[in-house]
Amino acid sequence: MSDFTVVHQDKETHARCATIHTQHGLVHTPVFMPVGTQAAVKTLSAKELKECGAQIILSNAYHLYLRPGTDIIKNAGGLHNFMSWQQPILTDSGGYQIFSLALLRKFKNEGVEFQSHIDGAKHYLTPESIIDIQSVLGSDIIMPLDDCIEYPASYEMAKVAMERTTQWAQRSHAYYKKVQDKNACRQILFGIIQGSTYEELREASLEQLLGLDFFGYAIGGLSVGEPQDLRYTMLSFTAERLPANKPRYVMGIGMPEDILQAIECGVDMFDCVIPTRYGRNGTAFTSEGRMVVRNAEFKDDARSLDSSCACYTCKNYSRAYLRHLFNSSEMLGLRLVSLHNVHFFVAFADTIRRSIQEGKFLEFKEAFLSRYLSMARNN
Amino acid sequence: MSDFTVVHQDKETHARCATIHTQHGLVHTPVFMPVGTQAAVKTLSAKELKECGAQIILSNAYHLYLRPGTDIIKNAGGLHNFMSWQQPILTDSGGYQIFSLALLRKFKNEGVEFQSHIDGAKHYLTPESIIDIQSVLGSDIIMPLDDCIEYPASYEMAKVAMERTTQWAQRSHAYYKKVQDKNACRQILFGIIQGSTYEELREASLEQLLGLDFFGYAIGGLSVGEPQDLRYTMLSFTAERLPANKPRYVMGIGMPEDILQAIECGVDMFDCVIPTRYGRNGTAFTSEGRMVVRNAEFKDDARSLDSSCACYTCKNYSRAYLRHLFNSSEMLGLRLVSLHNVHFFVAFADTIRRSIQEGKFLEFKEAFLSRYLSMARNN
Repeated sequence: MSDFTVVHQDKETHARCATIHTQHGLVHTPVFMPVGTQAAVKTLSAKELKECGAQIILSNAYHLYLRPGTDIIKNAGGLHNFMSWQQPILTDSGGYQIFSLALLRKFKNEGVEFQSHIDGAKHYLTPESIIDIQSVLGSDIIMPLDDCIEYPASYEMAKVAMERTTQWAQRSHAYYKKVQDKNACRQILFGIIQGSTYEELREASLEQLLGLDFFGYAIGGLSVGEPQDLRYTMLSFTAERLPANKPRYVMGIGMPEDILQAIECGVDMFDCVIPTRYGRNGTAFTSEGRMVVRNAEFKDDARSLDSSCACYTCKNYSRAYLRHLFNSSEMLGLRLVSLHNVHFFVAFADTIRRSIQEGKFLEFKEAFLSRYLSMARNN
Repeated sequence: MSDFTVVHQDKETHARCATIHTQHGLVHTPVFMPVGTQAAVKTLSAKELKECGAQIILSNAYHLYLRPGTDIIKNAGGLHNFMSWQQPILTDSGGYQIFSLALLRKFKNEGVEFQSHIDGAKHYLTPESIIDIQSVLGSDIIMPLDDCIEYPASYEMAKVAMERTTQWAQRSHAYYKKVQDKNACRQILFGIIQGSTYEELREASLEQLLGLDFFGYAIGGLSVGEPQDLRYTMLSFTAERLPANKPRYVMGIGMPEDILQAIECGVDMFDCVIPTRYGRNGTAFTSEGRMVVRNAEFKDDARSLDSSCACYTCKNYSRAYLRHLFNSSEMLGLRLVSLHNVHFFVAFADTIRRSIQEGKFLEFKEAFLSRYLSMARNN
């Protein structure tokens, strides 16, 4: 498919650079996608996201379906117009949210019935309706409804969830094929591999989903509480079984060290709420590790968060000022650290991309980690 | 004094246009000054304030003295550097805050002892130390310590507060004269007229303070709970007794209609927390009145807050989107409406300035109010 092109393959690892062509433009991978669950990347404007270098952002079909509702977004001319973001958007189906946020869910008539986490109102969604919702949103990359379970899960529970995910994937794919031709906009559908931490289940999920020939594949069910070594084992096991000629996306990962690990396994796409969640709590990501802005050691520190950072926050504000904002409960503090963090993660993926192009991925990885982890341990 | 120049005097009213030369540049009046009490205009970056057209912003000596403390701002090279704002800053002394926020205050040895509203720690401030604090901050326009009381106040209470304000103004002025020559930066000191709602006390305050020949004069003690007609009577009574060759500043005012009234009385400068406070609560100021963004009527409204507004919010976002952000507790909503409101008030003063230059002040006032108040009443 010409819509996905591997432009550089690392010689020492599975790391690679690629491009994904979407209806709102090209995405260069490896790419970090900031998360705007409710049609807003928390605290940040569309202009700031662009200035941070974000190529593509994530939103969530379940959340937007519940609030503001698809009619309102339809009348706004789709999600891009609604949130004033004209670059690519990937929408997660919200399978994870239905299973973690929604109340009293139960399977019924080939779908799932649940109560809204917002107002308790009853709703019923199917794999097909989740595709319809995302058609209305008009997102560039869409995800099928899946059953994503937490860690730890018993083998039996994990098997049931994996098999349900496969059945829903089959229905999603069939329905997508049927409606896609009628849509004005071209949307890209990914498959999601589940199977918790069981290699046998991951293998079965792969086998069942690869046959459906999705445009790309996501690895779901990681970063849900499992220990790091198990995460890396599953990541590597799953990623290396995914076809090389399709984009690979690991959902909800993660910390810089996890992203490096996943890229080494050949993963192309990442999303995570970490930059904004940590930003709101006053923790900044820097090339020298994490920094708790409120710490007393920064009270008189005239330096920027990260001397090697080109974001608006680092170009204009000192650690002392940011600490003052957090101590004074000034919302500007959350904003400025969130902005810095999003910039950090986006630029981090950009730098990795360049290192792969220059044949220096492992060299960069080692240099980054030795600098980053030395201080991260102290925080 | 060449530092203050009246460049246009309206023929029908006391309204006028003037310039104030400060060490960080010219200020064109009438001017609205956004309030950044704790060295931040709530939710907004310095870049956004500039883009809103803000010429000068306000901060507060009492708040900054308590947190982060003057040493930290001194080490940052002053308040302008600390908050990354290189245009003029006016600092209020914090007299009002000492009397409204601080705990267990008492007068002692020619100063005021109080407990911090933040941590209960004891502090002692004098008119002289308030001048010293503002020297360290390096603000362009500084205010003396005053005794600002709420409405209603008995004549006796108001008299005591007015007389204390005068004594402190005398000491502030004398001390300012003494230390100003030693300062690297040139700061402008205003006097503050008090006297509550008693013409006799306002007159006495004027008489005592005009003799001291301050650079400019502020009208304090209004917008503290008094009814509008009494506010307008006091405003007019005080403003017309202030010298024409000096800037006039009414503190803490206010609503658009109050600003128009004050400009008609010859007032040049305004500050108020209304734009950001209302913005955080989801109320937008528009040329057609106030708008409660969360109202159901806007749920599908694709229009901007104000079709005649050129701010970032109005150029990019719909009422429907802003309503969604407020309903979803997304901080971006507070930001975008605060940004719009600050832009509205700054642009409002700019438009009034142009109307005075064109000899059309009363015409503008009437046209604005008939449009603005017709809808404001409905909200």
